[in-house]
Amino acid sequence: MHAMERFRREANAIAMQKMFEADPVVEDVRSALTAVPGFAKNLILTSGPTMDWARYDGGQRAAILGAALFEGLADDAEQASDRIATGDIRVLGAQELGCVGSVAGVYTASMPVLVVRNRRHGNVAFCNFYEGTNPRRLNYGIYDEAVREQLLYVNDVVAPVIGDAIRRSGGIAMKPLMKRALNMGDELHSRNNAAGLLLMRELLPHFLAGQGADPARTEKAIMALTEDQYFFLRFSMAAAKATADAAHGIKYSSLVTSMSFNCREFAIRVSGLGSRWYTGPHPQVAAKLFDGFGASDITWMGGESIITETIGLGGFAQAGAPTLQSYQGGTVQSLIDKNLEMYQITLGENPDYLIANLGYRGTPTGIDIFKVVETGVTPVMDIGIAGKGGGQIGAGTVRADKTCFGSAVDAFVSQYS
Amino acid sequence: MHAMERFRREANAIAMQKMFEADPVVEDVRSALTAVPGFAKNLILTSGPTMDWARYDGGQRAAILGAALFEGLADDAEQASDRIATGDIRVLGAQELGCVGSVAGVYTASMPVLVVRNRRHGNVAFCNFYEGTNPRRLNYGIYDEAVREQLLYVNDVVAPVIGDAIRRSGGIAMKPLMKRALNMGDELHSRNNAAGLLLMRELLPHFLAGQGADPARTEKAIMALTEDQYFFLRFSMAAAKATADAAHGIKYSSLVTSMSFNCREFAIRVSGLGSRWYTGPHPQVAAKLFDGFGASDITWMGGESIITETIGLGGFAQAGAPTLQSYQGGTVQSLIDKNLEMYQITLGENPDYLIANLGYRGTPTGIDIFKVVETGVTPVMDIGIAGKGGGQIGAGTVRADKTCFGSAVDAFVSQYS
Repeated sequence: MHAMERFRREANAIAMQKMFEADPVVEDVRSALTAVPGFAKNLILTSGPTMDWARYDGGQRAAILGAALFEGLADDAEQASDRIATGDIRVLGAQELGCVGSVAGVYTASMPVLVVRNRRHGNVAFCNFYEGTNPRRLNYGIYDEAVREQLLYVNDVVAPVIGDAIRRSGGIAMKPLMKRALNMGDELHSRNNAAGLLLMRELLPHFLAGQGADPARTEKAIMALTEDQYFFLRFSMAAAKATADAAHGIKYSSLVTSMSFNCREFAIRVSGLGSRWYTGPHPQVAAKLFDGFGASDITWMGGESIITETIGLGGFAQAGAPTLQSYQGGTVQSLIDKNLEMYQITLGENPDYLIANLGYRGTPTGIDIFKVVETGVTPVMDIGIAGKGGGQIGAGTVRADKTCFGSAVDAFVSQYS
Repeated sequence: MHAMERFRREANAIAMQKMFEADPVVEDVRSALTAVPGFAKNLILTSGPTMDWARYDGGQRAAILGAALFEGLADDAEQASDRIATGDIRVLGAQELGCVGSVAGVYTASMPVLVVRNRRHGNVAFCNFYEGTNPRRLNYGIYDEAVREQLLYVNDVVAPVIGDAIRRSGGIAMKPLMKRALNMGDELHSRNNAAGLLLMRELLPHFLAGQGADPARTEKAIMALTEDQYFFLRFSMAAAKATADAAHGIKYSSLVTSMSFNCREFAIRVSGLGSRWYTGPHPQVAAKLFDGFGASDITWMGGESIITETIGLGGFAQAGAPTLQSYQGGTVQSLIDKNLEMYQITLGENPDYLIANLGYRGTPTGIDIFKVVETGVTPVMDIGIAGKGGGQIGAGTVRADKTCFGSAVDAFVSQYS
């Protein structure tokens, strides 16, 4: 046991160094089919650990069926369901292919993805695009003609223009931009306003150079990039995934390298425990709902944007985003208190993500399954809340259930002692 | 005395309502000569109450002479000085013509100015342009060929492109943008990063529409607008001047409607006391100097950016700008404490400028000369620090001397009792 402790400490130091040194750079925008190794025309990715088709329900099931229709893989929802059941259409957890999903998090072959390369370690992660400001969205379980048109608008206008600018730029390093945004009111999960503006500024010369004969098209893409705080979240998620993945697969490391939901469960992966997900119940929600909605309207349809918390952002940086009190509820002090509490369960203080509101202390980074079990403190996460009728109905801070951390510790001890 | 108190309360309520309801909109960019009523080809404006030429010294005198050379009003500094002495060249305090000066604050006829109209009350204010990132600048008392070329670059490239975009926009309302920036790390005096990005976003469609055959020129203007946090300060200053002026000239009001420095003195104007400046010594400085500079390098060459503090921004909103601790010194708590202290000397809480870091409390707004004298608390101001050798050598918080507030109270009592 003593040796295991020492090996764990050393392994965690190595894993944390990788997490800290990762250098995520957005380099390209391409279709999932052409960008993501292992993608296929009949494949649909979705948030959370992969499950049998029968277990997907509610909004997440609706989103998967909608994705199949959007991609032309079936003529109607019933046929799509049948084809999934038979395996003609495959459904897979997004992170199996280096992708991360927002809410239901469905990806199809034709959807454009951000390609983010960790230039320090070479691994690549992906995230597809924000659909737009309309609360009725495929990733919140809704699919109709308006949703389809908006998805096509992203595919045909927004993503190509932004992709062109990104390629012209030679790649935009995410970390310098995210560092700055953290002291401009963002925590890079539920608030990304400043980061979107900073990215726009970086891309602007390349937008100008690339607009050719159609500045209106460029303008539309720029408006998409800046009109909603959630547009940049997809960049933040892909950057976080490229960062967390660099720290995965270190033998003896008890560092959490991913967290995710599907409609059934909350789940984590651990650096030294391979590709297995450790699962448990959904978190308890402390949310502020939009007008007209109540607690009984809340539903779970998946979500992997909590990859940001995994690397010391989002709930772990919320002291830098005081406006979340009006969006999620709470007070400035409660934001700060929750943020500070996370130092109890993390392995380091981020050398890059410094919070002026905490006297430039680095964010608590790198969740350790042992620390969670020993302290009973579980990760806080800033998330959008999905409604049973579809769409986003609020935002809040949720706190992970400890079950999966306990299972992971048991597995760790049995594997390594 | 009882009647005076009542009249004063009523007058201050009217003045504050005007300050709160002001709606500053940047509408145009034109040369000072064509935009500013009362301007003339042989006129130079400078910061602070107008003084006899002999009293201008140091960097402010150097800036005025440099301005004369830049405008071609004299062949050399000696001739410029002679012509100022004889009145062939006139020197006037900027605020006499509705302008506000940054540091030495020199304006000449050909310099472009932002035209900001208070659409609620109709009054107009002006500010000229930020020169650029080089610390060697005319407004910090330096004039040479490089300074001249940079000023011409602003006149010929930056200001025309931005002016064109502003005119196309039909005017950009400053208040909505400034409100947002206050919760993105700005206090709109020593920190304006977010406001600059937000302005860029507002202007972007108009930049795109107006670029014609020369996108490189548009790009240069956009880079000027976003590369330095001080570019937007000129917009903030003009907006603040248009706001404060609306509250000036209310009989019986003891509201401070302007604060300013020249190289000799600090000065205030009071709503109910006409155009007279009440003067006193310069403030004590608590500053963080750039590497290589010491306290003995500090000098005063004027400054009117403290018009922002006059309407509840800058030092009065510094709790919203936690990064100022690294720029000006201090801690998050000292920023908050100084901000909170200002509620003791102000007449209201701003209904628009709300600080999330203070639980969305409105900034302390509207300095009352009586409250300053009664409490002994004087205004805090976030300012750039000028060096004796020219240029900016640091930044800090200064605290006004109380002398001028005492003189103003004496004058008020003698006029109204």
